Amino acid sequence: MSDYHTFTIADAKAFALAHGDTFRESDSLEAEEFGDGNLNLVFRVKNANGRSLIVKQALPYARCVGESWPLTIERARIEAEVLLRHGRICPEHTVKVLHYDAGVAAIVMEDLGQLAILRSELVAGKQFPQLADQLALYLARTLFFTSDFVLNGLQKKIEVARFINPELCLITEDLFFSDPYCNHERNAIHQPIMPQARELWHDEALQAEVARLKADFLSKPQALLHGDMHSGSIFISAEQCKVIDAEFGFYGPMGFDVGSFIGNLLLSYAGQFGLQEDAGRRQQQQDYLLRQIEDLWQHFSHEFTRLMQTETKENSFRNSEYQHYFLQQLLADSLGYAGCELIRRTVGLAHVADLEQIRNEQQRAASERWALALGRSLIMQRQQLTTIQQLLTLVRHQQLPA
Amino acid sequence: MSDYHTFTIADAKAFALAHGDTFRESDSLEAEEFGDGNLNLVFRVKNANGRSLIVKQALPYARCVGESWPLTIERARIEAEVLLRHGRICPEHTVKVLHYDAGVAAIVMEDLGQLAILRSELVAGKQFPQLADQLALYLARTLFFTSDFVLNGLQKKIEVARFINPELCLITEDLFFSDPYCNHERNAIHQPIMPQARELWHDEALQAEVARLKADFLSKPQALLHGDMHSGSIFISAEQCKVIDAEFGFYGPMGFDVGSFIGNLLLSYAGQFGLQEDAGRRQQQQDYLLRQIEDLWQHFSHEFTRLMQTETKENSFRNSEYQHYFLQQLLADSLGYAGCELIRRTVGLAHVADLEQIRNEQQRAASERWALALGRSLIMQRQQLTTIQQLLTLVRHQQLPA
Repeated sequence: MSDYHTFTIADAKAFALAHGDTFRESDSLEAEEFGDGNLNLVFRVKNANGRSLIVKQALPYARCVGESWPLTIERARIEAEVLLRHGRICPEHTVKVLHYDAGVAAIVMEDLGQLAILRSELVAGKQFPQLADQLALYLARTLFFTSDFVLNGLQKKIEVARFINPELCLITEDLFFSDPYCNHERNAIHQPIMPQARELWHDEALQAEVARLKADFLSKPQALLHGDMHSGSIFISAEQCKVIDAEFGFYGPMGFDVGSFIGNLLLSYAGQFGLQEDAGRRQQQQDYLLRQIEDLWQHFSHEFTRLMQTETKENSFRNSEYQHYFLQQLLADSLGYAGCELIRRTVGLAHVADLEQIRNEQQRAASERWALALGRSLIMQRQQLTTIQQLLTLVRHQQLPA
Repeated sequence: MSDYHTFTIADAKAFALAHGDTFRESDSLEAEEFGDGNLNLVFRVKNANGRSLIVKQALPYARCVGESWPLTIERARIEAEVLLRHGRICPEHTVKVLHYDAGVAAIVMEDLGQLAILRSELVAGKQFPQLADQLALYLARTLFFTSDFVLNGLQKKIEVARFINPELCLITEDLFFSDPYCNHERNAIHQPIMPQARELWHDEALQAEVARLKADFLSKPQALLHGDMHSGSIFISAEQCKVIDAEFGFYGPMGFDVGSFIGNLLLSYAGQFGLQEDAGRRQQQQDYLLRQIEDLWQHFSHEFTRLMQTETKENSFRNSEYQHYFLQQLLADSLGYAGCELIRRTVGLAHVADLEQIRNEQQRAASERWALALGRSLIMQRQQLTTIQQLLTLVRHQQLPA
């Protein structure tokens, strides 16, 4: 901690040169800072041959929650260690960490500049046929291999303690599970949907179900989660798919990661009503998104089941009825968290481009109302939606409100 | 750790004199060691006026699990800190800790020699009308005030990490959830019930439900549990009731503590078939035990509901529908763990006097079969048993097998 100082461009270059073998002493390095500056400094360092690395440094504060908020730089350790663990388990789809330094709270990692951020691509109406398969593999493997299916009690408890991440979890506890369901000053509500937002503040049946999901978020350490699986945390190209930004990682309910991602695909679906004026192309993009959701769950459940059947170390969990039950509950949890993501991205603090970029106010409001209504249905009906096809039917039948 | 040495009688006297104000330098102290010598040394130190204290020292090994098994003396810290926290929350029913010393892994605590161990009293057919009320208060308060209802995310996570207790939890994970359901060498099976024990090894439906309960034991840190709430951990008199022996304490599912105790009352009920030959007195004692189970749940749920309504700090959990759901699931969990306790005390390593002291082999076997059958019903039907009266009906209708 005593070593800590905010990196300059020169510091970032020296740090990238010192760690990993990408650069040589003789290289003439260039660097630029391109992070948002609120949570972290992010530098791209490159040499004259076009080779490059990313240096990410945690800042000891965050303005991301609406006001000056001190935030431990310990989160850089969490991020590095989550990415290293997930990288060992699923190197294909985890950004590669080359070095982490606790003193300066900084990470050197591979540069994914040749890929694009998934959210922007989906907003632009692009399609990646392998997206679902790639993320299904990432989710199934990272969740399974950090769980009680594999780790014994001692190993698991040590890992749970190692990834206790109270400050970042608190952000999720508040923004995801609390603020949208009350009149909180952090909420950002698009004026036309104020009546629908207000309904959330008084919907006790919904709040009871959200409380159950929050209780699990607080006290169901099933696996080492990424913790922030939205479409801005995913780099994509026609061939590659890499997950980044794991500082929200902690031991939590598996459905939170799966559901956050499904929620983001549904937000993209909601946005298409207003973003894409051509009805045929809109339909085609929405069909693509639903196919990704279906494929995601089919591939995820297939791979997770295969792993349960062949890689389970804990005898008690080799029971096939238990495994069936476990996967069923994981689907229900995932749909519940997907519903929460739909709601909090619509009326909470942190919005998404999928809805924000709809230029027409009325169309944006319609998409937002659709997202809120679907979110509520997912949360309330999650235990009854026992197949992914039932989810797809629900989505297709959800009318776009006026 | 470097200070650690096994206490002699003289060490125990000096330790008791040095900590707390019970004794004076001028006192002529006497001491005796009366622990089982396997897990801990337990000394009673007293002066000529009859004042006394208990000194309990953790030994760095345990032969309790059938073989030489090193066991961390860190468990003395866990025990002391659980008792101190529970003592702050419910001083009426928690043994009072006067001092804990990490170097020698020893605790000075009040002497409860004027009380009796609950199990022995129940085996002898005694009754304590306030037992259920007293333990309902202890359970409701200790579980509620160490939970997410009260602690914020940061406090709770610090506490969970502080009470990570892998070695002692492993004993429970094995003895409670695994061994009875396979042909494990640690099991001690009374020969006449071998056919019923064998059925457990092949009962996949039961094993699936036990796996769910084990998964929660591993990954549902709802509250700081006592972790070993059997009737040998409870000191009792006509007026007083005090819980001791908290070295198995950790953050786990609330139903584990509640269910362990209910399971022990049901084991006592099972034992009465063989221990009490007078049919009228047997009926009377069994009625008493069922009344205690009914009172325990009624008082527990009443107090826990009152606390949820008036003392909940976390806004999300003030929702009355959520609270209702929470209590309902807590009952189901408790009945499941009670069922596990019935089974593991009958065919696992650690038996109970309630069954062992039945002299007639056939009668003992009948009581054991009854305990196994009831245990299975509780585990399989726990989600359908939505009131404590349904449990009582199930118990009353459970036929004593031949």
